[in-house]
Amino acid sequence: MKLALIQMAAQTEKEASLQLAESYIGKAAAEGADLAVLPEMFCCPYSTENFPVYAETEDGNCRARMAAAARENRIFLVAGSMPELDSEGHVYNTSYVFDREGKQIARHRKVHLFDINIEGGQYFRESDTLSAGDQITTFEIETTEKSRDGRSGTPLRCGLMICYDIRFPEFAMKMAQQGVSLIIVPAAFNMTTGPAHWELLFRARALDDQVFMAGCSQARNTEAGGYISYGHSIIVSPWGEVLAQMDEKEGMIVQEIDLSATEKIREQLPVLRQRRTDLYG
Amino acid sequence: MKLALIQMAAQTEKEASLQLAESYIGKAAAEGADLAVLPEMFCCPYSTENFPVYAETEDGNCRARMAAAARENRIFLVAGSMPELDSEGHVYNTSYVFDREGKQIARHRKVHLFDINIEGGQYFRESDTLSAGDQITTFEIETTEKSRDGRSGTPLRCGLMICYDIRFPEFAMKMAQQGVSLIIVPAAFNMTTGPAHWELLFRARALDDQVFMAGCSQARNTEAGGYISYGHSIIVSPWGEVLAQMDEKEGMIVQEIDLSATEKIREQLPVLRQRRTDLYG
Repeated sequence: MKLALIQMAAQTEKEASLQLAESYIGKAAAEGADLAVLPEMFCCPYSTENFPVYAETEDGNCRARMAAAARENRIFLVAGSMPELDSEGHVYNTSYVFDREGKQIARHRKVHLFDINIEGGQYFRESDTLSAGDQITTFEIETTEKSRDGRSGTPLRCGLMICYDIRFPEFAMKMAQQGVSLIIVPAAFNMTTGPAHWELLFRARALDDQVFMAGCSQARNTEAGGYISYGHSIIVSPWGEVLAQMDEKEGMIVQEIDLSATEKIREQLPVLRQRRTDLYG
Repeated sequence: MKLALIQMAAQTEKEASLQLAESYIGKAAAEGADLAVLPEMFCCPYSTENFPVYAETEDGNCRARMAAAARENRIFLVAGSMPELDSEGHVYNTSYVFDREGKQIARHRKVHLFDINIEGGQYFRESDTLSAGDQITTFEIETTEKSRDGRSGTPLRCGLMICYDIRFPEFAMKMAQQGVSLIIVPAAFNMTTGPAHWELLFRARALDDQVFMAGCSQARNTEAGGYISYGHSIIVSPWGEVLAQMDEKEGMIVQEIDLSATEKIREQLPVLRQRRTDLYG
């Protein structure tokens, strides 16, 4: 299967972010990608103050535009994440997933809110304005282009988490138990946690859970005083090898992924079968 | 606290391994180490055929000699591991831990047996001759030298796992939940899994569970055809940083560890408190 990661920075004007995303989704489809991924908060500059201001309900414009982009390009789309306003006034950090017809096939609300305070480093408190989701989200895509002819392709079960969710090993393990072979992570690490932990976390989850890991980051923005994104969108194999990694600039990776690697590694190093569930979990 | 990792290769003659271990334990104490660690199967060349041949019951010579070495050097000792024969004829891969008086304060029997078969790489099946343990093992040491005067030192709770046990994230997480700040891993990775995964696994567990990780490996042995040990004994901080790492040769690390780092990191990046136990575990 072919996976496209679109590393872009959210623009102050929502419309500019949407147009940038649409342009890249078109390019991803033109390069034959089956699945395109946008970053966390791709249409909302990342700050707690902005989340309620940029938030839209599920029938809002941002979600509709991304559904249309998936349909028009006949591509599966993980629409990064955007602030979602629910009927009770709560705001979530939400990722919608669309199939090649633009139909929504999954919705993940970030489960672990990003509340950290590192001495001499990054402070952030998502929970000041966001509510947390309470679901583990997986979905199935078809990875070959056969479905373009109306025939069904090869099914692939994917897990979906948002940024800080990746720090919780049991969360990914639960997805592995549910049979996912690929975990998608729209994200926006910063200049403290990025250099220290970004690559390590993706390699760790890939190796522990014997899945492909794909992290799609916001591109480096350079606004003084704001939240600075680390970039470095990444794809890691189930053996823990980095298959592709970007630098900090805007751009796109389109990577062919050999899904048979997962089964092979699980056979040779059968840690998922060897878990001692009598002692944990 | 001061931690010593003794990277040695098991000798064909058991007595030679014991003398080598004793010599290093003496050196560790002379350098002021509070805790010394030996590698996995430090007194038994690593092969399934050897385990039953070199095995001893709990009242055997190897265990007694290590208890005596701890007592004589007034040092806490994780006596790597050795093949242990129980009263029913089962053989375990067992690590004994002794306090400064030579009293046994913990015993870990390897829980996850090393059964792998990597195409073009390493094949090994511990379960051909070994039985698996069924306990999570933690113990407490005193980290200052005050206890030498009969006064009590600062308590430190440690977890203990053996080699392949490290591949199971929930196992380490369970130890973190039990309050350990340091996990000790006698080990003997090989030339397939060592370069690919050794450092990654130690950094991953350290970061995920916000603990110090210490891996004590057998030194590189060069017997043709046998199991070749990777070496690279390692100490990693709770931030996922490698504090010390050896090459493949016989030797010893003595490393000062600042235990206050654990609490500080847990405060700044409170992932252990932020776990969503409603969704997993």
